[in-house]
Formats: sequence, structure tokens, C-alpha cells
Amino acid sequence: MRLSKKERHLLLRKKLEEIPFLTDEDLAEELSVSIPTIRLDRLELGIPELRGRIKTVAEANLQKVKSLHINEVIGDVLDLQLNTSGISIFEIQRQHIFQKTRIARGHYLFAQANSLAVAVIDSEVVLTATANIRFLRPVFLGEKCVAKAYVVEEVNTKGVFVIKVDTFVQNEQVFSGEFKVAKYTDGK
Amino acid sequence: MRLSKKERHLLLRKKLEEIPFLTDEDLAEELSVSIPTIRLDRLELGIPELRGRIKTVAEANLQKVKSLHINEVIGDVLDLQLNTSGISIFEIQRQHIFQKTRIARGHYLFAQANSLAVAVIDSEVVLTATANIRFLRPVFLGEKCVAKAYVVEEVNTKGVFVIKVDTFVQNEQVFSGEFKVAKYTDGK
Repeated sequence: MRLSKKERHLLLRKKLEEIPFLTDEDLAEELSVSIPTIRLDRLELGIPELRGRIKTVAEANLQKVKSLHINEVIGDVLDLQLNTSGISIFEIQRQHIFQKTRIARGHYLFAQANSLAVAVIDSEVVLTATANIRFLRPVFLGEKCVAKAYVVEEVNTKGVFVIKVDTFVQNEQVFSGEFKVAKYTDGK
Repeated sequence: MRLSKKERHLLLRKKLEEIPFLTDEDLAEELSVSIPTIRLDRLELGIPELRGRIKTVAEANLQKVKSLHINEVIGDVLDLQLNTSGISIFEIQRQHIFQKTRIARGHYLFAQANSLAVAVIDSEVVLTATANIRFLRPVFLGEKCVAKAYVVEEVNTKGVFVIKVDTFVQNEQVFSGEFKVAKYTDGK
């Protein structure tokens, strides 16, 4: 079914509200139109391209992060509900891969998940105590990893939380982790 | 008991054979002499300073590492027995810490342990499948982390191994991890 331009514009806005990090390619496929059509639609609607959208959303969310310095989250934070949940996106670039295989090095996926888990907790200093993690399939150069963190439980009143982080490329899960983090006080 | 210079030289060599990454400060304390005395001893014996020693040992060990490109081990490899065990040292520098607290970011300790676990296995491509890790105390700027990895078991004949990694600062354990890694074949 072919949509009118007005319908398409409405749908495009709705899609981007739900998932702000859709690429023009994704949108073209979703709406069954060409990529240039999507670009034109974005121009008419005043919607910046993906990188610009991520930057805007990420900067707004980083204002909320207490536990890390603004540059210390690995990836761009797309959503953050303090003490509840968070989403970040991290693109695998040349410096993140093994040269031989172009597979992302595990510690970058770990860093994305771990720093998001820490950022979710509303406290000045939060440290990781334990993590149980699982790499479900290799992630390759150029893939965009979307990590979703949510607080599973507050273990006790001393500020210890269990946070689950699942990371996806497109709709395929590539990583899962369970982090126990704790608010840290050094006696000051 | 005060040692003669000859005895001290013998002991100094022995200490460094056992633990090549002792600093001049460590040696001065161990042998109950001043740091300048240790420096003079090293000069007379033709023993380079710590950084030089680490570099020599690390380069020799890296020749053995099949699974990672030479620059891909995080930390300097001090010992490597393929399919058995490995030791690396990693000094926490400014770029590894949280600005607020000067505490090392967890993913660097993870990266040291994970890359050592992978390096120990004698295969072209090795990937981490799972990891259960524990941060036992915060590690601070300037501290030297010594990670010791050993293969606990070969799970099956398909090249899956369980590797335990314990990381210490001086004699205090700061990190423990159990990694399950697998030789990777992509069908080629």
C-alpha cells in the first residue's frame, strides 16, 4: 500500500520517536520508499540526520548522569531513566577490532555495558563489584551495538543494585551481562 | 644483618629472576639499602631499569602469542606458557581512571585479564564466550596490576578452555575472573 506524503511524514516521525537511531536506510525499508525520498522528507520536517539526532539525544541524557564524568560513558546514551533503565549505542570502529579478524574486542562491549550500568545509578560514585557476562556472537567492524540496561533489583539499603544489560545488533542479541554495582563512599 | 656487596649482588639477581618487575624502591626495601645503592648495583651488573626489563621480557613473550596481534595484549606480558599460564603487568595511568575518584575504570582491568586469557591459548583466533568477574577493591592511579592467568580445564575437544585470572597490586588481590574462551573458526 502506497502512503500519501502526509501519511508518510506522520509515520516517519512516529518511527523516529520510538527508535531515534534508525538510519535513512532503515527508514527507507520500513516505509518502502527510496533513501533520497527519506532524506527529502527529513529536510522538509527539519529532522537532522542520524549522527545529529544521536548527538542531541545523547547530550540531553548525559546531563542526567551523575556517576560518570560526561566523557566517561562508552557509547552515546540515547535514553536514561535514573535508577531504572538506560539505552546506549556504540559503533564498532577500526580501533575496536582485532586486526586479523575484524571482530570487535570483547572489552569494548564490556565497557559499553558496564559504563551504562554505572550511569543508570543516581549517585556520585558507583563502582562495579561483579559481572557475569556472555558474548553471544562476534560483532564486526561497522556494526552498531545497542545496549539496554535495566535495574533488576536493589539488593539492600546500602546502595547495591543488580543491573541486567542486553546488547543487540539490529534485532540480534550479541551480548548479555548481569552487573552488581555499588555506591561508593571512601569515608569522606 | 648487613650483606657484603657480592652477596647483595647475588641476592639482587636472584630477586629479579624470581620477580622481574620489582622496582628500585622494592629492591631497596628487600635488601635494606638505599635506592641509589640499588641503582649503582644495577649499573655494575648491567641490569636495565624496570621499564627496560619489562620491555625485554614482554617482547620475548609476545613472540609466542599467536592469537592476538602484537599490540593487542593490554599490559606487558612477563611470562607465557602456551595453553598453561601467563602473567602480565599493567600500570594504571591517567587515561585509565575516573576523573572524580582516580579509581581505575573496570573495563581496563577486564581488558588486561581478558586479553591475557586469550593470549595464553595457542591458536590463531580465540574469542571469549563467557566471563564471571569480581572487582575486589578499587585500584588507583599509579598502581601496578599483575594479572596471573592459568588454564583450569580444556572443556572439550573443540577448543573450549576455562581460564582463571587473578590480578594483584603488591600482594593484595584486586580482581578475579573466570573466562571461558574458544578457538574460533569462521569456516575458512
